[in-house]
Amino acid sequence: MALIVQKYGGTSVGTPERIRNCAQRILETQRAGNQVVAVVSAMSGVTDNLIKLSKAVSSDPTEREMDVLLATGEQTTIALTAMAINDMGGKAVSLTGAQAGISTDGVHTKARIVNITPDAVRRMLDEGNIVMLAGFQGQNQSGEITTLGRGGSDLTAIAMAGAIKADLCQIFTDVDGVYTCDPRVVKVAQKIPEISYDEMLEMASSGSKVMQSRSVEFAKKFGVRFEVRNSMNNNPGTLVKEENQGMESVVVRGVSLERNQAKVTIDDVPDRPGISSIIFGALAKAGIVIDMIVQNVSFHSTTDISFTLSAAELAKAEEALKPVLPDLGKDVAMRVQAGIAKLSVVGIGMRSHSGVAARMFGALADASINIQMISTSEIKVAVTVDEAEIERAARAVHTAFGLDA
Amino acid sequence: MALIVQKYGGTSVGTPERIRNCAQRILETQRAGNQVVAVVSAMSGVTDNLIKLSKAVSSDPTEREMDVLLATGEQTTIALTAMAINDMGGKAVSLTGAQAGISTDGVHTKARIVNITPDAVRRMLDEGNIVMLAGFQGQNQSGEITTLGRGGSDLTAIAMAGAIKADLCQIFTDVDGVYTCDPRVVKVAQKIPEISYDEMLEMASSGSKVMQSRSVEFAKKFGVRFEVRNSMNNNPGTLVKEENQGMESVVVRGVSLERNQAKVTIDDVPDRPGISSIIFGALAKAGIVIDMIVQNVSFHSTTDISFTLSAAELAKAEEALKPVLPDLGKDVAMRVQAGIAKLSVVGIGMRSHSGVAARMFGALADASINIQMISTSEIKVAVTVDEAEIERAARAVHTAFGLDA
Repeated sequence: MALIVQKYGGTSVGTPERIRNCAQRILETQRAGNQVVAVVSAMSGVTDNLIKLSKAVSSDPTEREMDVLLATGEQTTIALTAMAINDMGGKAVSLTGAQAGISTDGVHTKARIVNITPDAVRRMLDEGNIVMLAGFQGQNQSGEITTLGRGGSDLTAIAMAGAIKADLCQIFTDVDGVYTCDPRVVKVAQKIPEISYDEMLEMASSGSKVMQSRSVEFAKKFGVRFEVRNSMNNNPGTLVKEENQGMESVVVRGVSLERNQAKVTIDDVPDRPGISSIIFGALAKAGIVIDMIVQNVSFHSTTDISFTLSAAELAKAEEALKPVLPDLGKDVAMRVQAGIAKLSVVGIGMRSHSGVAARMFGALADASINIQMISTSEIKVAVTVDEAEIERAARAVHTAFGLDA
Repeated sequence: MALIVQKYGGTSVGTPERIRNCAQRILETQRAGNQVVAVVSAMSGVTDNLIKLSKAVSSDPTEREMDVLLATGEQTTIALTAMAINDMGGKAVSLTGAQAGISTDGVHTKARIVNITPDAVRRMLDEGNIVMLAGFQGQNQSGEITTLGRGGSDLTAIAMAGAIKADLCQIFTDVDGVYTCDPRVVKVAQKIPEISYDEMLEMASSGSKVMQSRSVEFAKKFGVRFEVRNSMNNNPGTLVKEENQGMESVVVRGVSLERNQAKVTIDDVPDRPGISSIIFGALAKAGIVIDMIVQNVSFHSTTDISFTLSAAELAKAEEALKPVLPDLGKDVAMRVQAGIAKLSVVGIGMRSHSGVAARMFGALADASINIQMISTSEIKVAVTVDEAEIERAARAVHTAFGLDA
């Protein structure tokens, strides 16, 4: 008998019929001889409707109350799914985040899980129940309802799996798993059977948004293995786990692309301490998320700093930087460019294999695609190219690393 | 400074605009120098939608899960109303039933309040907050969500008012208060400024459904005064309170009518112990609510037993009684009649004034209306008449007791 935590997203429970499908799947998992905790999100559309309601009564909804409001979405789904399971002859009980002992800090709308006391969950499992657990929510030390922010239900599943020492955590979604590249772009992309936490993190931060990074980070920190699977079929998914020797034999695990990027270059900034701090401090203060940052060694007294960000935030970034430019130096100029995209190759095998960057650049050169910026980490090489060329670039690199079927 | 508990029903919070209206009213009450706890129901229509969802996933929804599901309705309203108050410059926090310390027994979908620990409510009030409290819900000893059944939000308000020793409990509804008769029937009906708990109970059980009897009973038991008011205007309402000497000077406080009744008569039952028990045992087992029961003294060895019930339950009652008729005696026959209505006059003054029944019967005789059944309590005289005559009967009796303006 295994102890399994499953998680179903909003689309998987989006209609009464789909709730019954999930109920069936959960019940089958139990009937196969397992104990099951199933985490569910709000039915798709419900959270948006609640947000709309909040805006209809308030121009600036209180965050504490936003959590009370949004938590009803998952509470609705756990009750309905438990009812459906019981209707099918199973035995299920629902638990809200608070009832399941999920304690968070006090930061409303984006709380962090600080502790889980899974006594109620364990007791209910031992009594033969399927436990339907509300994702995305917990309770702070004052007994207030909190929500975990984007990707919160994945986090609930992974954290609960860690707390009850589950044998397996299955994240059900609307794709079969993690692919070597977006199959809409690279038709021959392959599903990856196993991937390490770090690779998954780099893929996520490079545009392969199967899951939010924070859930993967949490899983890595607490050593929780999880599998990304499709809720609409029974295909095996992608297992995300600690790395092992065998994984290193694959140099590049996948290629990921991120569109709608923009680039900002600040030219001729003095090459002295504190300059970067002024620039990125101003951007952080404005709440702008920066992706790649590139600064080359200067041979003169000035240098250039470039960074990329979502094109949607470009205007906000310009606004934030304009007031600080004079502080950087009198000749400082800012250039911006939207319409770029980022291509990354990711693989822990890079650590022990040389020539990855060279092979990537060679493939792009052969395809006559110009590289604008380059940034690397221990297990990733990322470049930016003109957005119009990103698909061609992805296919060329996918082939070059032998990832085609 | 007074401590006031207010309650707003589903219609009063049925749209974002109405929620803002309630928020305004609650805030004004606080700004007039009071501490305020406001109990709200689910937005009108929400509970019905949730029930519909439950039926879409299950043919027989689990009661425990039904409570988890339905409780989201009030949770949504408290969050929205608190947001609206904060948006208007006030300071409000919301509490679910569990958070507010409302403990119930374990009977899901119709739990009874067993205890209230209002520490959180008191602390929040003392911190200058308006407390938005979810009606209709509590928590049982196992920490499960429970709901209180029909009229549950009124009960929440009255019970909390008792627990925190509120100076006043205001039940806001869509009428101005309790009237001497239904104003749609008797145009000259007057709003009653004060009414005793017992009169209110008899009025409620006689068709004047401003509130469920259980809330009034709870108020009487714990001596909680409350006022029934209109949420759409500022008119004074009806104060429901313990009786006093002055109240007895009014012989009849009001006239109430109940339509869509049916009558069942069982003829020629043997006049021996156990007969009634067989009849009403069978009806109770079928979950049928009986209203008036009339049995006359028998001069022979047999008697007739009549009772009234909602016409909607007549077929079910016939079904329930058929199998037991042979147990009553071999000549026993059942006659049923729908299309009847009940007219009651209610007043604690009856205890000290004679001739109330005579005056009522006289008024009906003068109007040539035939009385079918008669039943009395210490403070009520009720009769059934043909449904077609109920409005004429109500007007005649209303006039006869000097209740017209």
